[in-house]
Parts: sequence; structure tokens; C-alpha cells
Amino acid sequence: MITIALDAMGGDLGPSAVVGGASLYYGQHQGDEISFLLFGKKDAIEAELKKYGNLTSGCCSVVESDKLITADMKPSVAVRNGRGSSMFEAIKAVALGKADAVVSSGNTGAYMALSKLLLKMIDKIERPALVNLLPNLKSQSVVLDLGANVDCSSTNLIQFAIMGMAVARVLLKINAPSVSLLNIGTERSKGTDALKCAADFLEKASNINFIGFVEGSDLASGKADVIVTDGFSGNVALKAIEGTIKYLATLLKKEVQDSVLGKIAYIFSGGIVKSLKNAIDPRNHNGAILVGLDGIAIKSHGNSDHVGFANAISVAVKFAQQKLVDDIKHEIHSVEREEQR
Amino acid sequence: MITIALDAMGGDLGPSAVVGGASLYYGQHQGDEISFLLFGKKDAIEAELKKYGNLTSGCCSVVESDKLITADMKPSVAVRNGRGSSMFEAIKAVALGKADAVVSSGNTGAYMALSKLLLKMIDKIERPALVNLLPNLKSQSVVLDLGANVDCSSTNLIQFAIMGMAVARVLLKINAPSVSLLNIGTERSKGTDALKCAADFLEKASNINFIGFVEGSDLASGKADVIVTDGFSGNVALKAIEGTIKYLATLLKKEVQDSVLGKIAYIFSGGIVKSLKNAIDPRNHNGAILVGLDGIAIKSHGNSDHVGFANAISVAVKFAQQKLVDDIKHEIHSVEREEQR
Repeated sequence: MITIALDAMGGDLGPSAVVGGASLYYGQHQGDEISFLLFGKKDAIEAELKKYGNLTSGCCSVVESDKLITADMKPSVAVRNGRGSSMFEAIKAVALGKADAVVSSGNTGAYMALSKLLLKMIDKIERPALVNLLPNLKSQSVVLDLGANVDCSSTNLIQFAIMGMAVARVLLKINAPSVSLLNIGTERSKGTDALKCAADFLEKASNINFIGFVEGSDLASGKADVIVTDGFSGNVALKAIEGTIKYLATLLKKEVQDSVLGKIAYIFSGGIVKSLKNAIDPRNHNGAILVGLDGIAIKSHGNSDHVGFANAISVAVKFAQQKLVDDIKHEIHSVEREEQR
Repeated sequence: MITIALDAMGGDLGPSAVVGGASLYYGQHQGDEISFLLFGKKDAIEAELKKYGNLTSGCCSVVESDKLITADMKPSVAVRNGRGSSMFEAIKAVALGKADAVVSSGNTGAYMALSKLLLKMIDKIERPALVNLLPNLKSQSVVLDLGANVDCSSTNLIQFAIMGMAVARVLLKINAPSVSLLNIGTERSKGTDALKCAADFLEKASNINFIGFVEGSDLASGKADVIVTDGFSGNVALKAIEGTIKYLATLLKKEVQDSVLGKIAYIFSGGIVKSLKNAIDPRNHNGAILVGLDGIAIKSHGNSDHVGFANAISVAVKFAQQKLVDDIKHEIHSVEREEQR
């Protein structure tokens, strides 16, 4: 039995997206042994639960926590005053072993700070990183850090690589994933000192399938299973990709509207548009994991609806079932052992 | 009369793309008073010139320079041994006043180093930046730095903003362009110290229309006329955008091939596909300027063909006609005067 703690008050849509997402996930995974702990305002959550027949008390408990972590609250304030909030209590459920993973669409900075406080870091890991899968021409890549750390040392990047490998094993089912560092060129002379130093280390590590530097275009080419970058570039690149998809979709729509032939083409292309939309729909990629923590915390997009939230729950379940944290601990120790030789 | 110096040996395609591009540009701008100085191996260039009737000796001179700056040559080696190469001599023509601008598709690092050496920096400007226009939902944005500087101080970012404004005036014809800094969030607490410090300065400068931080998605949204970033993030974002466009085009093609309705739709959509292709064709955006130099040096993409190279020439001509360098000098002085008040 896997138990997922849900911060029902986080995100722009609050309980409606969270309860709706839980119901959607539960309906699609009838065979799984899964239950939810819902944290937030009882009245609001129960009003939503009534809309969905499938979330009965057998699989679902509501835990009253009436305080709120607002979207603009500073992480330091959340740490000081967060106790009793839906986000704090949902994370604490994982720390206490009452849940196997937590999912929240709430304030990212506060979520990171509270997760570090309550779940603690895995021994030896210096910083958590935000990880997600990005679709590419071959399949998908594990990309990290997507925004948790503005500045990264070579040690941070090396640790991100090791954690990314563990995530690739769970999500992509690849035993020896190829690992790369995101840079502004593939030549070894390119980039920051931190990148050059991390590349030297990764190249020497016998248990890491390091393929060198990749460029921004390789986020979509599928050249590497794991792409490691600092949180600044990773966040800018991720949002640039999202913006480009939106831009092209708008351009396409405008062209269709502006021409008669375009309208005819559109009638015949329903299937294409739908399948393209599915492939690039951010809701189908919702659910980034904060790796490096001694527990599983999944960040859902602040504006995600019930479809996106259901996807974030599925990511949480996968990591919980496959014991990602144990895998990362094992990886870190084996790299350390090799270093000591 | 505008004279453009062309490095005929640079880029993957060498003289065929350069001479072909010059011929294409010349054919499209019959009324303009323009001439070319072609630097490189005389035999190779003249063999190409024979293919095009319109590049006669009246508008075109070939200057023998048989040495080559190879694609993998280190900038320091290019500086030491570059004299006599097509790239070196083409840049020198601008330094000597024999040409108004130079265009090269060759080795970027070597081109930057040689341009700094021969053209010198504009007084007070610390570093050159690579600038280009990116298309967005409203029109286009001036984006810099796209890869010249891996690390940037707040002073660098401020100077990039000022130079970006001058570029926007020439290319976008906007008198008081909106200026922004690329960050991982729009809140003033987000990002690196260099970004926060640059934001403080730009906000106070009365002659800069600073609109604050923008995110990666705003590279395509058109929120700002000028978007300033360090060369690392800028390069990663630019290539991520290029990769995403390629990814979506491939996805669309695959969907079309896989379905009967898709094929029918494709028949009716010829115009749409063509117009979309034009909008996102990187060749139509080829030609980045290295701003900050006391002269106009345009970098064409290494793999650009004659169509891309012709576009890079048109960028060079625009900047030469509108005296971009004088405009930047003027801007720098006026910001400096304001600072002294």
C-alpha cells in the first residue's frame, strides 16, 4: 500500500484541482493499492470530495490544517510560521512515515525550504535539485536542476548527475543512462570552471556513462538520457521551450484562421492536432521531483488543473514504489567508494 | 556607398555560401549603393563569382588571403598567427576604414578575439556581446548576450542593456524600447546578485525604459523589446528554442505521414506550412552583431547557406547605414553623465 500526502490548498486552483486530480488518478489505477491523505480546510475539501464518487473514506482521509502558505510568502517566513499549514503538515506526514510521498502545487521556495527542514537532506548531498522529464525526438530526458539553485559548484553538478541517473532508472527504465552536462558548446574548453571541473570528474568515474557536453538544442534531440545544468540556465531553458511551443501553436492557429485552405486543412487534421497537443501538453509532464531530500516531495505546477495534478500524483507513486531515495543513497556511496580508491 | 568586407572562407560551406549570399543580396537590393570586398583564396572565389552574372568588378573586389582560421583553432592561436587569413584581413579592412562592416561565418571565438584586437572596444565598454533579433508573438525582441560571455557582472549587464537599446532603435525602429533582464522569476528577490544589482541601476536610470525581470517564456511572448542576459543562459535559451522548433516540425511531419487524414490535411495546408516555415526559418534570422566594438562585425551561423548569408549581409548594411557605433557611444555618454549628477 502506497500513501500519498496531498497539499490540498496549494496552487492557483486549490482543492478543486487537487481532489479532482486524486479522483482522476484513482479512477485510472483501480488495481493499485493506494491511499491519499488530504491536508487543508476540511469543509472545502469535503465539498470537493462529494463531487467524485470514487474517493471514499477507505482510500482517503482528510486532515484539518487551516493555515495557508501563500504564493508570495518568503521561504524564511514559511519556515518560521509554517507549522499547521496544509503544506507543512503534508510534508511532515512523509517525515513521520505516515505517507510515502508528498505532492504540492504551492509556493516553490516555501516548499523547498520546508521540505529541507522536515525531510532533511540525504547524507553527503549538498543541495536539492528540481528534476523533470522533457520529451525529445527519441523518447524523454531527465533534466536537472530546473530552478532550485541559481549558482552551482562542480560538486553540486556532479551530485545532480548521480541523482539524475537514479531518476532515469526509475522513470525511463534505463540501467546505465547516458549523462551529459549542458554547455554552450561541445568542446572541452567551453563553459564555466564549474562545468569543466565536473566534466573531468564524471569522465573518470567508471560507473557513470558520461558522454560529455551537450548544447541547448540537445534538450529536444535526445542525445543524452540525463542532462545536468545549474538551476538558472535550466529554468530559463525550460521556460524558453514552453514559450516556443506556445508561440508556434499561436502562429499555426493564426495561419489557419487567415486562410480558406487552412480552414479546410484544419478540418482534416483534427487527429494530428490532438496528438501533437498531447505530446506537448505541459499537463502530461507535470510533476517535478525535488531530489536530494531524504523523502519524496513532488512539485506540481502552480497553475496545474486536475489533469496535471493527476500526472504529478503518478510521478509520486512511481518514485515511492521504486524507492528512489534508497537508490540515490546507494549511488552516492558507490561513487564515494570509488573516489577513495 | 556602403562597402562590406566578407570573409569568403569562413563557415562550413565557404566561398559558395558567401559568394552566393552576396549575389542574392545584391540582386534583391539593386537600388542600394553597395560594394563587397571578398577576402580568401582568389581561385576559389573567382570560380564562384563566375556562377553569378550580377557580381561584376564594379561592385566586387577580391583580396587574396590564402591563410585559414580553422573551426577548431583556439582564439589565442588566431590572435598570434591570424595575420594574412581571410578573417583577419576582412576585419582589418573595417579597422582601416576600407569597409563599413565585416561579415564572417567562421570560428566564433577567433572572430571575437580578432575583432577585439583589430577594431578595439568602444571607450568604457568592458566586453562585447553577441546580439540578435528573436521573433515573438508581437514582433521581435533584441536579445543579448547570446554566447560571447560565460560570466557577466552587473556592469556588463547594464552595458548590454544600453547597447541593446541602440540596436533596437536601428532594427526595430523604436525610440524608447522597453528593456528587461532575463531571470528565473519576475519577483525582485529572484536571481543572482549581478541581476539584482543591474536591476537597481536600470530602474533608477531616467533615460532607460526598464520594465523589470522577464522569464524564459517571455523570449517568445514579446513582453520586452530588449532582453538582457549573460552569454551562458542566452546561448542555452537560443539553442533550446531552435531545438524545440526542430522537434515540433519533426513531430508534425511524423503525424502527417502516419495518418491518411493527415496527408489530406497536408495537401490543403501548403500555404500554412510555407508561411510557418518562413516565420521560424533560422536563415531569416541569421546575422548576429558583436556590439561593443568600435566597428561593425556581423557573425553569420557556421552552417549558413547563401540565403542565411544574404540575411547576415542585410543586417551589416542596416547597421552601417544607421551608424550604430556612434549611437552606442552617444548612449554610453548620456548614461554616464546622468550617473555623475
